Amino acid sequence: MSMVNAFSREDFERLGEADKALIARREKVLGPAYRLFYEEPLHLVRGEGVFLHDASGEKYLDAYNNVASVGHCHPRVVEAITAQTAVLNTHTRYLHEGIVDYAETLTATFPDALSQAMFTCTGSEANDLAVRIARFVTGGTGIIATDLAYHGLTNAVAEFSPSLGESVTLGPHVRTVPAPDSYRYSPEEMMEKFGRDVEAAIADLKRHGIRPAMLITDTIFSSDGIFAGPKGFLKPAVDAIHAAGGLFVADEVQPGFGRTGEAMWGFERHGVAPDMVTIGKPMGNGYPMAGIVLRPEVIAEFGPRARYFNTFGGNPVAAAAGKAVLDTIRIEGLQQNALEVGNHLMEGLTTLARSHPTIGDVRGAGLFVGVEIVSDPATKRADAALTTRIVNGLRRRRVLISASGPRANVLKIRPPLVFSRENADMLLEALEDVLKTA
Amino acid sequence: MSMVNAFSREDFERLGEADKALIARREKVLGPAYRLFYEEPLHLVRGEGVFLHDASGEKYLDAYNNVASVGHCHPRVVEAITAQTAVLNTHTRYLHEGIVDYAETLTATFPDALSQAMFTCTGSEANDLAVRIARFVTGGTGIIATDLAYHGLTNAVAEFSPSLGESVTLGPHVRTVPAPDSYRYSPEEMMEKFGRDVEAAIADLKRHGIRPAMLITDTIFSSDGIFAGPKGFLKPAVDAIHAAGGLFVADEVQPGFGRTGEAMWGFERHGVAPDMVTIGKPMGNGYPMAGIVLRPEVIAEFGPRARYFNTFGGNPVAAAAGKAVLDTIRIEGLQQNALEVGNHLMEGLTTLARSHPTIGDVRGAGLFVGVEIVSDPATKRADAALTTRIVNGLRRRRVLISASGPRANVLKIRPPLVFSRENADMLLEALEDVLKTA
Repeated sequence: MSMVNAFSREDFERLGEADKALIARREKVLGPAYRLFYEEPLHLVRGEGVFLHDASGEKYLDAYNNVASVGHCHPRVVEAITAQTAVLNTHTRYLHEGIVDYAETLTATFPDALSQAMFTCTGSEANDLAVRIARFVTGGTGIIATDLAYHGLTNAVAEFSPSLGESVTLGPHVRTVPAPDSYRYSPEEMMEKFGRDVEAAIADLKRHGIRPAMLITDTIFSSDGIFAGPKGFLKPAVDAIHAAGGLFVADEVQPGFGRTGEAMWGFERHGVAPDMVTIGKPMGNGYPMAGIVLRPEVIAEFGPRARYFNTFGGNPVAAAAGKAVLDTIRIEGLQQNALEVGNHLMEGLTTLARSHPTIGDVRGAGLFVGVEIVSDPATKRADAALTTRIVNGLRRRRVLISASGPRANVLKIRPPLVFSRENADMLLEALEDVLKTA
Repeated sequence: MSMVNAFSREDFERLGEADKALIARREKVLGPAYRLFYEEPLHLVRGEGVFLHDASGEKYLDAYNNVASVGHCHPRVVEAITAQTAVLNTHTRYLHEGIVDYAETLTATFPDALSQAMFTCTGSEANDLAVRIARFVTGGTGIIATDLAYHGLTNAVAEFSPSLGESVTLGPHVRTVPAPDSYRYSPEEMMEKFGRDVEAAIADLKRHGIRPAMLITDTIFSSDGIFAGPKGFLKPAVDAIHAAGGLFVADEVQPGFGRTGEAMWGFERHGVAPDMVTIGKPMGNGYPMAGIVLRPEVIAEFGPRARYFNTFGGNPVAAAAGKAVLDTIRIEGLQQNALEVGNHLMEGLTTLARSHPTIGDVRGAGLFVGVEIVSDPATKRADAALTTRIVNGLRRRRVLISASGPRANVLKIRPPLVFSRENADMLLEALEDVLKTA
């Protein structure tokens, strides 16, 4: 499986000379594992709020980047990073107020039971640590994830990230279950199906002599095709893994920090109690930081016996950046904004769908929205080619989104949380324009 | 095995009220996996050059921290991070000059064959990626590391990081070999022994049906006890792994970026050609960044089939920070400074050893220095208790070092590279003072 929305070398000759030169230098020194977005890659030089600017002075509406969650170069975050970088940046083996303050502020946004935090630099590291802890606690090794999950790219995490493609093999102790497809199953079916599938995976692990360690899921299924509901469908699956002696890990790297609008954390929409929650991307608005929030019982034995130290994880600058992000979400009411603008956007998309039957489904929560593109709404047959034309058509109209899903036909709309109704209207207008010609 | 130089909860009641309160808050919210340094932990608030300042206004000479390699809060690095953070911080799926410039500047410091760079956020991630690539390229899974190596703490890397202690099990496909102990073996023995031990490990892997994927070593053995020489002893081991179809990975996370004084990269001292070089800690002077520099042949097949993306790795701010660090090393002549001041320091320590027989050995390269503390130089019997008293005695005299090694008796002196002769003399004077009473 190739990457959705990747630049293809076949389009190289169509690019301008400056881009060709930079791409050639890049390929020479970064090698063949790196990818670029879009048929015509973007050469960016500046960002501010929801806008990105390229080298030729063009301005783009960013409806894709969830890392710069409180807006590109938000002054409060820039100031926090700037101030702390100039004063001190060591590590967690010295006492520092910043990390303790931040961990207290962060855990206060979680249900009481999730009261401890551990800090890494990336979501991959957070999920990798979750595996280590889950295996230590349960004595099991089995892991259940969804069919097209992406949880990261360390050796251990790539083993349960099938979205990396067929060249990256799944672990022998890994079982995958279909993500809940709310477009192809009724809410009633969905409420039962996911739990049943997880139960079957548990049974299969046991049949192979593998004790389950954990179930890990996004709380909005992202690479699986952006499925957000129905609310509550996770619960039977969480009950099943607990009954089997395993842990439930909620991967909030993408849905967390208010993006769903309805709650600060995606799992709260489902009324489930994770044992560990992994967080990342928007945590420092671009400063490299991630982590785990967990129940103290989970780490009580691992901690004393298998110490944890991450040189950069939770350093004073990361703590300052993270605090500024939490402050900004609260002060600017960004969770509420995500709810309101997300609903406005989904209404607009639903309206657009009425006159454009190629829009098969509009779904999501808050500012995490998927739009499924089909050649025929009756058969729900995916149209990946049209999806690619839409993504690149929007890029030419200076609106940035991408696509995902098992059939590469789901528009992925996931803007910074400061996205306004006006920004949403710009996106809708550009999309309508693209749909006329794509 | 417990951590060398870790704060013990038994000393809690002896601390001041403010530190007790902060530690209690920290334990509550960060949990039991975190450790602090020293019998009396340091509460830091500010850093500048080679000095760190605590909450009560005391000033400490930092002879330990290798991350702030060009000095705490170096103005050039602070300015680079500040300027880029305010302008743009996205990721490597857009074109950006900064990452290409940086990768070109970085790879130019390596031998020609090592011409491509890939970026992660931590040394753990870099070594974890090295494993993925080595397994992909060789088709093998076997890994050889040293007896007390530390290469990181992802699941895959912890499996060959025995220094994490007995609660973290080694992988069934991992073999360890003794680090070259230049205190207990003659240079002539050492030139042969390490290669022979690696050959035996390869034979044992094969006997178990495990094809070797890689040999990974520090190029100055750090957690193994700080062994730097003799120069050249790595070569037979590298030849052996190559003959067995495996790769040689040089872990330069600690020795790299000029620290050894004699060369920019530790492997150059041995005249060997690594297939991959992993780098980290000092790379961004505290900004979370790390990576791999490799021969293009190694990634040629992995790259197209198993794409690599690290959300924060190689982002524009990381590139700016990394460039500022390389510029500073060059402009301030820090590699040369490491050589001169390191030699001065080792001469002073050697002089001190003449009147203090508990100093059994002084060794290292540049500003990466180990001092082995023994109860009796004739038997070379380790004195871990005295080592702890020295480390804490220096801390009370406001000089910061730590200790390492299989017997917890090697003083680890690894200051920022801007350490001056005067700083070295301060350290020597304090150490002499401590040795009188410790």
